[in-house]
Amino acid sequence: MAYQESFDIHSRGRGSIEITSEVARVVRASGVAIGLANVFVQHTSCSVVLTENADPSVRRDLETLAARWAPDADPAYQHDQEGDDDMAAHGRNILAGASVSIPVSKGELRLGTWQGIYLWEHRTIPHRRRIVVTVVG
Amino acid sequence: MAYQESFDIHSRGRGSIEITSEVARVVRASGVAIGLANVFVQHTSCSVVLTENADPSVRRDLETLAARWAPDADPAYQHDQEGDDDMAAHGRNILAGASVSIPVSKGELRLGTWQGIYLWEHRTIPHRRRIVVTVVG
Amino acid sequence: MAYQESFDIHSRGRGSIEITSEVARVVRASGVAIGLANVFVQHTSCSVVLTENADPSVRRDLETLAARWAPDADPAYQHDQEGDDDMAAHGRNILAGASVSIPVSKGELRLGTWQGIYLWEHRTIPHRRRIVVTVVG
Repeated sequence: MAYQESFDIHSRGRGSIEITSEVARVVRASGVAIGLANVFVQHTSCSVVLTENADPSVRRDLETLAARWAPDADPAYQHDQEGDDDMAAHGRNILAGASVSIPVSKGELRLGTWQGIYLWEHRTIPHRRRIVVTVVG
Repeated sequence: MAYQESFDIHSRGRGSIEITSEVARVVRASGVAIGLANVFVQHTSCSVVLTENADPSVRRDLETLAARWAPDADPAYQHDQEGDDDMAAHGRNILAGASVSIPVSKGELRLGTWQGIYLWEHRTIPHRRRIVVTVVG
Repeated sequence: MAYQESFDIHSRGRGSIEITSEVARVVRASGVAIGLANVFVQHTSCSVVLTENADPSVRRDLETLAARWAPDADPAYQHDQEGDDDMAAHGRNILAGASVSIPVSKGELRLGTWQGIYLWEHRTIPHRRRIVVTVVG
């Protein structure tokens, strides 16, 4: 049994947007009792991640770390057609990933208490991002 | 067809603990012949990873690298309620991930010869960590 | 419903090789209309990743970044039996991962326009790498 829905998120530029409730709605719509929910973003310059949902300073600190992992405007980059944040965004996408897979139990996402699902935009300007949620069970 | 079991691992603080045999047992109990096994941890300050199972120095060197990727007690962090290792643990969780998905063939995990499944604790003090294994096929 | 095939890729040493068409072929052979395709590599010193498929300079710049994330011949490494690139390869495998899971719609991979699937070899000498593709739906 498999069920799939997609939706768009309009990012406001670099930063993270919680999408847990949108994903939870698709999981309930799927009718799958036990299985896996995969949340996938169809782009190579943003990520879908799980991280702490309580203190927003965690997500600010992740930006601080990401700026070291893949800095903007690095003189070593060859790929900069779309600006100083172009290659930095591709690097962060590789590190943080484009999807997460989450267990489904009793027809609901089986997240830990402090886990939220986030679209993490790595580009500095707003983008429309397509998310595909697939539930198998 | 989907099957799910969860179990707790008591970490001894920062470091990695092999859980391959526990996951293999769940896969056999599932009765799934061909499919996927997802191993998920319900926390944002530790990881589930695949890495080399032969020479323990690999996992010691991964700690050395992780201390550069997301150092403890970085003065740039805003999030430090739970101590010097709090934000470092969230950063390492983003990089190494909270789950792995592994193919299942003939009712068994289809790992490479040198691949083991590890709970990687990023916090310095011991924690109880909840692992959820889901097998679909 | 689940379907699985494996194939070998002969890497030419460090660098990335596109495998999108091989994976798409397996997805079509599976007969799965809606579901997930998991692409898994049975090794701990290379990765399977999604990244931009248009400008090859993205993948050159990823090598530049990876050389900072997990440098060759770092004097801090204890694990170096197979050479200066041994531990660097294990570190990059942890960061970039060993598998990707991609939605399947209408019997095809549902990738974004600019997303390609790559085997990313982290070792400097050529290796034969075993890829397992599992499609569930």
